Amino acid sequence: MNILDIIDKKEKNEKLTKEELQYVINGYLDGSIKDYQMAAFLTEIDLLGLSEEETINLTDIMLHSGEILNLGFDNITDKHSTGGVGDKTTIVLAPLVASLGVKVAKMSGRGLGHTGGTIDKLESIKGFQTSMSLEKFKDQVSKIGIALVGGMGNLVPADKKIYALRDVTGTVDSVPLIASSIMSKKLASGASNIVIDLKVGSGALVSSLEEAKKLASLMVTIGKNNNKQTACVLTNMDEPLGYAVGNSVEVIEAINTLKGQGPKDLTDLVIKLGGLMTAMGLNISEKEAQIKVKENLYNGKGYQKMLEWVKAQGGDINNIPLAKHTKIISSPKSGYISSINALEIGKLARKLGAGRLTKDEEIDLSVGLILNYKVGDYVQKDEPLVTIFYNEKEITEAEVLSCFKFSDSKINSPKLIIDIIR
Amino acid sequence: MNILDIIDKKEKNEKLTKEELQYVINGYLDGSIKDYQMAAFLTEIDLLGLSEEETINLTDIMLHSGEILNLGFDNITDKHSTGGVGDKTTIVLAPLVASLGVKVAKMSGRGLGHTGGTIDKLESIKGFQTSMSLEKFKDQVSKIGIALVGGMGNLVPADKKIYALRDVTGTVDSVPLIASSIMSKKLASGASNIVIDLKVGSGALVSSLEEAKKLASLMVTIGKNNNKQTACVLTNMDEPLGYAVGNSVEVIEAINTLKGQGPKDLTDLVIKLGGLMTAMGLNISEKEAQIKVKENLYNGKGYQKMLEWVKAQGGDINNIPLAKHTKIISSPKSGYISSINALEIGKLARKLGAGRLTKDEEIDLSVGLILNYKVGDYVQKDEPLVTIFYNEKEITEAEVLSCFKFSDSKINSPKLIIDIIR
Repeated sequence: MNILDIIDKKEKNEKLTKEELQYVINGYLDGSIKDYQMAAFLTEIDLLGLSEEETINLTDIMLHSGEILNLGFDNITDKHSTGGVGDKTTIVLAPLVASLGVKVAKMSGRGLGHTGGTIDKLESIKGFQTSMSLEKFKDQVSKIGIALVGGMGNLVPADKKIYALRDVTGTVDSVPLIASSIMSKKLASGASNIVIDLKVGSGALVSSLEEAKKLASLMVTIGKNNNKQTACVLTNMDEPLGYAVGNSVEVIEAINTLKGQGPKDLTDLVIKLGGLMTAMGLNISEKEAQIKVKENLYNGKGYQKMLEWVKAQGGDINNIPLAKHTKIISSPKSGYISSINALEIGKLARKLGAGRLTKDEEIDLSVGLILNYKVGDYVQKDEPLVTIFYNEKEITEAEVLSCFKFSDSKINSPKLIIDIIR
Repeated sequence: MNILDIIDKKEKNEKLTKEELQYVINGYLDGSIKDYQMAAFLTEIDLLGLSEEETINLTDIMLHSGEILNLGFDNITDKHSTGGVGDKTTIVLAPLVASLGVKVAKMSGRGLGHTGGTIDKLESIKGFQTSMSLEKFKDQVSKIGIALVGGMGNLVPADKKIYALRDVTGTVDSVPLIASSIMSKKLASGASNIVIDLKVGSGALVSSLEEAKKLASLMVTIGKNNNKQTACVLTNMDEPLGYAVGNSVEVIEAINTLKGQGPKDLTDLVIKLGGLMTAMGLNISEKEAQIKVKENLYNGKGYQKMLEWVKAQGGDINNIPLAKHTKIISSPKSGYISSINALEIGKLARKLGAGRLTKDEEIDLSVGLILNYKVGDYVQKDEPLVTIFYNEKEITEAEVLSCFKFSDSKINSPKLIIDIIR
């Protein structure tokens, strides 16, 4: 077996055996298969797809490329988002459900393409440690019911390496690669229950509803095959989630949401996902679970858990640095906002320095954008539309305005939760 | 502009502008676009193709990525082969037409995928220098009418870098990438006349006749657009050319051919291509040119020119090291040989160490295979079928025999020259 033959075989769109997939993953991990060869192979998968059987095999191989965590708790509930623009949901959800007694022992990722990553965002809290020993991790979960790190020990080393490469080779938007990446990590992390927030729309990894449903079914199938309670919620990502897009600005918005003062869309999503997680984690009905979630969103218990959690990981919640400069972009006209292009907003945030283009690029956690309106809102001419937080890298007014469309007649707010696949 | 957007645009199979192609080539040359990103982009082109306009633009950008040679001679004739298994044609042709007064000032490449490269082959002659200064190059062409190097000065740096990457990412078999690579080099090398030997078949870069014709027309179009006499000969590469496959073994066969003792297929091809080159180079009819070529193939003048040439580049023609060990594989049965799989024979040579899988891999010039028969020949059971020249790396009898098919009834020799596109 050699990598060039396997690349040739895939180019002909012939089915790859589990041994061939194993050869590629092993070779990439031991360095005998180079980044550029893996990039070629991943691009083939991106363009030609993989069968369900190949995807299940790939997931299994990736899962077994490292340790499979056994934390010693019997009912860990995990949540994963496929990543959108302005998606700070995990930062709200994790402490919120933990405050209800749902055990959260979670690993998250870094920025992927034009979307941000929870780990980058959390690092904008001064001092917040996103890596720790397994012992400390278990201990923290045991003591306060929540811990969140950016990948630990030797869990799914294959995904770690492949994920970083996909990020910089335009291969993030592939259904089988997303499914195998997410599910290998979820399975390795030792959770019993898995809730996936699958973003659909212009700002998401997956823009077509059809592809999203395929991906959702694939992930639920893989989860159930591995004896995990698994649900996948399809949510709209045509416009950014909430108002803030960046890293520090998103953390601040997450904190406000935990105080019951968040944007409506983000709050609704937190209640829906939190209800599913709590139902699975506490073995109660979803209806009952949602009531509990709402309570702790408004009675301050979720926020208290956040304080406890940030402190446990070394962070100072009162020190979240923002960029040096701000610039306000005003609305060029009066009217209803008919669209805010999440993808382009995400790219602008990246252009400011909030995201990365190459594997080793440093990002600027303090920059970003805060929108003042959502789709469906009415805006007056010359009212502030967007605030830009920037340092060295700038974006123009024209670039920002090109993300917005206006309408003279009333526009309905888009439907946030599209479907649930279980 | 950024590379991820361009990769995404190409993924959607949208037409790329000349500026976008320029951005990719510039970025790859200055290092801001990484190997793995270029690998992803090349894989997309390999799977989705490029339009004729995009290919012409890409060729022009690559051509202007470095110097365009002006050697000060007014009628240089160049020949290029797309590379096959056992293709040592250039090593015969170059001195042969030079002995007739056709000026050869040529650059050749290294091994590509399962096929060898002329530069690797020539380096199996002890002392042979495949790089020299432009001054020495011109001087040698002026004095003895022939010089051959492995790329000189800063000619088409874009192709040099891309070619090396294609070699190790399974993207060698792409029509637009082949066309832009070959033609940018040919145009930059300052030749007035270009003859291309386009191999077609299982052992060639292009296996389908349809693709080969597309490639041939594309290259002839690009050549003519640039005011060069251009012809493209389509030749069969289902079985290896001649008997020898490797590096030193091929040089030895080339020398024998120049002495008039070569395999029939190789000799026929040399007469055909040599006729075209000589007709263009001396401005005579192709018929007259072929007669001259045959004369110098059998009167020793071509071989004398080879001696002169090898000496001028520092080589010792009496010192072409062969591998330490030989092993003879015998025919398992009596019968007519109905097929010899050139691709698989090429891969076996690579497995022995004669070719490379990754960019920086060293190859073993002394190893290879010598076949004793061609398709259509009759072989007796237990007669020697193949001699393997090997050092550390070995191949098995079963691997060698799997390249051969036998038939009880008579088989015709395959047609070597399929078509000529001018």
